[in-house]
Amino acid sequence: MSGPVVVEVTRGPLVESRHEGIAAVVRPDGTVVGAWGDIDRAVLPRSANKPIQAMALVESGAVERFGLGNEHISLACASHYGEKRHVETVRAWLAKVGLSEDDLECGAHPPRLQASLEELLRSGATPTAACNNCSGKHSGFLTTAVQYGEPTKGYIKYDHPVQRRLREVMSDLSGVDADGFAYGTDGCGIPTLATPLKVLARAMASMAEPSRLSNKRAEAATRIRAAMNAEPYMMAGTGAFGSRINAALPGVAQVKGGAEGVFCAMLPTLGVGIALKIWDGAARAAEVAMATLLGHLGVLPAELRDEILHPPVRNVVGLLVGEMHPAKSWLG
Amino acid sequence: MSGPVVVEVTRGPLVESRHEGIAAVVRPDGTVVGAWGDIDRAVLPRSANKPIQAMALVESGAVERFGLGNEHISLACASHYGEKRHVETVRAWLAKVGLSEDDLECGAHPPRLQASLEELLRSGATPTAACNNCSGKHSGFLTTAVQYGEPTKGYIKYDHPVQRRLREVMSDLSGVDADGFAYGTDGCGIPTLATPLKVLARAMASMAEPSRLSNKRAEAATRIRAAMNAEPYMMAGTGAFGSRINAALPGVAQVKGGAEGVFCAMLPTLGVGIALKIWDGAARAAEVAMATLLGHLGVLPAELRDEILHPPVRNVVGLLVGEMHPAKSWLG
Repeated sequence: MSGPVVVEVTRGPLVESRHEGIAAVVRPDGTVVGAWGDIDRAVLPRSANKPIQAMALVESGAVERFGLGNEHISLACASHYGEKRHVETVRAWLAKVGLSEDDLECGAHPPRLQASLEELLRSGATPTAACNNCSGKHSGFLTTAVQYGEPTKGYIKYDHPVQRRLREVMSDLSGVDADGFAYGTDGCGIPTLATPLKVLARAMASMAEPSRLSNKRAEAATRIRAAMNAEPYMMAGTGAFGSRINAALPGVAQVKGGAEGVFCAMLPTLGVGIALKIWDGAARAAEVAMATLLGHLGVLPAELRDEILHPPVRNVVGLLVGEMHPAKSWLG
Repeated sequence: MSGPVVVEVTRGPLVESRHEGIAAVVRPDGTVVGAWGDIDRAVLPRSANKPIQAMALVESGAVERFGLGNEHISLACASHYGEKRHVETVRAWLAKVGLSEDDLECGAHPPRLQASLEELLRSGATPTAACNNCSGKHSGFLTTAVQYGEPTKGYIKYDHPVQRRLREVMSDLSGVDADGFAYGTDGCGIPTLATPLKVLARAMASMAEPSRLSNKRAEAATRIRAAMNAEPYMMAGTGAFGSRINAALPGVAQVKGGAEGVFCAMLPTLGVGIALKIWDGAARAAEVAMATLLGHLGVLPAELRDEILHPPVRNVVGLLVGEMHPAKSWLG
């Protein structure tokens, strides 16, 4: 076991702040090829495992039945910014399956993109459930319930068939029975399962290199990865770290972050999965840590390198006053 | 030296995230009465030392000359939310000294209070420098420049008399020559001095129990503490942790937070100062840590106790899904 993930934030000549975490790079058979910190520790994946959760949707046949495309599959994997295209695509999707925003159980919050929030407020409207960053994932959940003829109400509950299917997929991809995991309630109301970091990374590896899986499941994984690269801005939004990485690395990397400092990646050309957690929950550090690992593995796009490995810290008037970077004690 | 400050964030049965830091409780003569982690480490105080920076304003005689009141002194110590009352008071203050918003060098950012931001956007206006959370402090800086007949332009620069006076006050309160400190540039453009945590706590102690200082300086410290308690909502805003503490503990505690997880307090009845830093920079943890220290020292208001020592974590629909609290390894 190597030392932990450490990301520093400088201001002038000082390291002002410091983030610590754990990271694992794992193969589909569970072989650990990289470990920083104690990767047996359980983390709550939050939204970082949405691509895994989208498997149940793609496997169900609902994509073909309802004429869904890459934009919908990408949205099912998304923590989106609530931009116009995200919100309108969610609404149109729900209409396709005979439902509406009122069926979403994720709750409403304002759009994450400042420009979209401003547009909404200037128009006099109020945020609805379609603006929730998880509304695409929830639309996917509702779609599988419709596809299988299950009640849509209560689809966020632990014992609803929708949630059971997610655990079955997770168990198959990770090789560990997910029904045995403790769980908390996610921001959007669904269970989030306490998953050892290396188990989460192995599930990501199985998505990246799915030859071990059933044909149907392997096809679904490949379809999801393709959609994440084909519609990267549906995954997050304008200027988002994850969207930019997925746009820059088609066929090479598919990344997804979650709340509280979790970030995952699938690297099909290398046949590995990555999972990382920043202990304090900071997204800013999780992004630098993911960029650092992509660089370490030789798959960081050159055009983003400086900006995402050493993102600038600017003050209110835009002056460069510091930067973030991996610590020398880690991979700096 | 005791173990570090540790604040945990739970979700369901899990500790999902964890923050670590340092804290010092010090007397005016520099005696350390409480230490958690390495309090010799230098931190950038950011906005947590604004009450110290307000000393130069109150000592200058400008308060009397321009008819400034508690609301202005509190604003000079503030990181305010950009609420209507904050912004309008700043504008009226600048007019009193013959200046305007255009003289502020802090830059503009949107109001921090969501309701104030929404009101601004719905009205079609754009944020100006008066909305900047530091606009009160900068108005104080400009006022001292006017009072002493100095150029107002460039008042944020390290060598401007305004900034030199701040270092002279800091040196006197802390017993350490602040001209020797390294520094970075703060969010609002002024230098922020790398200060060993125990030195910062000692300066706060000198504000809390100023009998060691010159009469004029001691009077200024007492005036500032009184203003922070008398106008607590000018210090931050509606619902803000710092405002609520200062409102609840007149004469007993005056607290002020800063960016990147710094929090300071003056406790005049106990004759001590507190300074703390959360290494990852999280404000949520700095607040729980400050509440924990106030409780440890016996000055936490009973009516806020549960809410600020164990603040709830809620999801989008408002469900209680976890809480924050001091770890058992610290003062939990």
